[in-house]
Amino acid sequence: MKTIWLDDAGSAAVIIDQTLLPGETRELRLRTPGDFHDAILRLAVRGAPAIGIAAAYGVYLAAKALDTGDYGAFRKAVADHCDYLNSSRPTAVNLKWATDRMRSVVENNSSRPVNEIISLLLRECRMIGSEDAEMCDGIGRHALTLLRPGMGVLTHCNAGRLATGGIGTATAGIYLADSRGYGLRVYCDETRPLLQGARLTAYELARAGTDTTLICDNMASFIMSRGLIDIVFTGSDRVAANGDAANKIGTLSVAVNARYYGIPFYICAPSSTIDFGCPSGDAIPIEERPGYEVTSMWYDKPMAPDGVKVRNPAFDVTPAELITGIISENGIASPPYEESLVGLAGSKRDPGARIDGG
Amino acid sequence: MKTIWLDDAGSAAVIIDQTLLPGETRELRLRTPGDFHDAILRLAVRGAPAIGIAAAYGVYLAAKALDTGDYGAFRKAVADHCDYLNSSRPTAVNLKWATDRMRSVVENNSSRPVNEIISLLLRECRMIGSEDAEMCDGIGRHALTLLRPGMGVLTHCNAGRLATGGIGTATAGIYLADSRGYGLRVYCDETRPLLQGARLTAYELARAGTDTTLICDNMASFIMSRGLIDIVFTGSDRVAANGDAANKIGTLSVAVNARYYGIPFYICAPSSTIDFGCPSGDAIPIEERPGYEVTSMWYDKPMAPDGVKVRNPAFDVTPAELITGIISENGIASPPYEESLVGLAGSKRDPGARIDGG
Repeated sequence: MKTIWLDDAGSAAVIIDQTLLPGETRELRLRTPGDFHDAILRLAVRGAPAIGIAAAYGVYLAAKALDTGDYGAFRKAVADHCDYLNSSRPTAVNLKWATDRMRSVVENNSSRPVNEIISLLLRECRMIGSEDAEMCDGIGRHALTLLRPGMGVLTHCNAGRLATGGIGTATAGIYLADSRGYGLRVYCDETRPLLQGARLTAYELARAGTDTTLICDNMASFIMSRGLIDIVFTGSDRVAANGDAANKIGTLSVAVNARYYGIPFYICAPSSTIDFGCPSGDAIPIEERPGYEVTSMWYDKPMAPDGVKVRNPAFDVTPAELITGIISENGIASPPYEESLVGLAGSKRDPGARIDGG
Repeated sequence: MKTIWLDDAGSAAVIIDQTLLPGETRELRLRTPGDFHDAILRLAVRGAPAIGIAAAYGVYLAAKALDTGDYGAFRKAVADHCDYLNSSRPTAVNLKWATDRMRSVVENNSSRPVNEIISLLLRECRMIGSEDAEMCDGIGRHALTLLRPGMGVLTHCNAGRLATGGIGTATAGIYLADSRGYGLRVYCDETRPLLQGARLTAYELARAGTDTTLICDNMASFIMSRGLIDIVFTGSDRVAANGDAANKIGTLSVAVNARYYGIPFYICAPSSTIDFGCPSGDAIPIEERPGYEVTSMWYDKPMAPDGVKVRNPAFDVTPAELITGIISENGIASPPYEESLVGLAGSKRDPGARIDGG
């Protein structure tokens, strides 16, 4: 199952429109920066790593379409496209991280002809994609050290294959464990309002043969109270320097419940998700999305009274104190995160190695 | 807004089919025990007190339709109808409480002619309804003592007018406060999978002019983390002798989150909900409902992959240790509940009076 690729003519990036899953598998061809901006905004492509890969292709295709041999004009236009793409999802630090990489290719090669820089941009896109697949494998190897056969795992939203260029982040350990016959029992929160858990995670896990059970978000506490969950894995869109982690709305509630029941709660995210410029969760802007996603988006009739006020925050921030560990491709960081995350970003460790803050 | 009444001919109980709200207001006429059983099972009528009132009318109409003047046969048939109606919702202790009252009318009047007993059964139905309205007012007066102008209140599911014969249980304090100009800010959990919060609570509160905001269940923790909630009110379908309270799935998660944020969490329920025969929540059976309610009930297309496993518990049990107080028409019980609930069931107190367990 691939999430994003360049078409044969090299003129469009192809994605599966995730707003239509699991009912319909429709390919979407993205060419212009507007196409990419719209696809990211509409969540046709979503998940921090996948958004980064898509944005990189967006920058490449926009650069390729520029009709100039003048380096200064080229550089300015690419920078503008990066800014425009960055504006599509304010919380996705991976988005800016990917466009910054593309921008650096342009800035670091000012002496080369523009058409050569365009080739380097394509190479950078592909590297971002393959590095992402390797990153997923790395997270999986570390997460695997926490799993035992027959364990119950809870996950929220989709931080799976469909969110990355590989085997996912929150799902990576699950895929590796089940390929070794662990027979995990995985519970997927449906993840209102956009139902990524029901539509995407349950879809990709069940397809891979994992024992998958779908629940409503508000059932997680009950399932935990019955002793059915041994560990929680979720992704993150942005990890602050102190370990506070922004992720899909509802993650915070899962973490609070996990703490109450004494269940370990892990964030699984590439080291690129750590934003050392962001001191704590308080500095993370929370995107507020339209109310119709809650009241009427999937329904065949309105499910709330006309004109009722709705809050629809797309993310919440789980405070570091509720997070047992942060698993990246480089290892598992433990509290205090101010120190351990610096180690995580800077070094690769053996699977299972813990990077302790103290 | 009335929830249940007898039609002019006295031959059917009329309810608003709550499965169609808020889009459509359709009256449903219930005549046979099968009609009532089906309406309770389908949640066309729901909420512990309203179910009790409906079941009482169900017993009355079934008794009236019996073609016998023989007391023994009459008594046996009424008892069978009570058992049948009781089987429609295993967790609703109010249901059995109401049918027991009706059964007692039959048993306590063995010397009277059957047609006279039928008149007494009608009187008993009406008393159950008017007592319920008074019970709601009583809960409201006690809850009001906990409210201050401008407070943020969170509620889950619907324990409102639509669930009772009066101003609701969890909503009673809200209605009384706002009629006094408190200007509360009320947040309604949508309450998946059946969306009673979105369809019913947001509907009835907004209609009454209360400042109402709808959220997905998984947003409650975020809203609490922002300091927007000062108190939580929910209903209960059954309170065990130790204070453990069964209520709509998701209540447990709200209580766990309220505890984490230090927000008082109150159960609002008539004293008839207290089941002294049930020592603790462990003894409360949890109804498991069909998976299609989660995957496809409201949607215009399937929102989960074909054949995925689903858990759909209709209730959860909030342990007494998470409950700040239990508000009934007789007062507010505080921990330890083993003692305070006995006082609550047996006596009427002044509004705001606390029945302390110690």
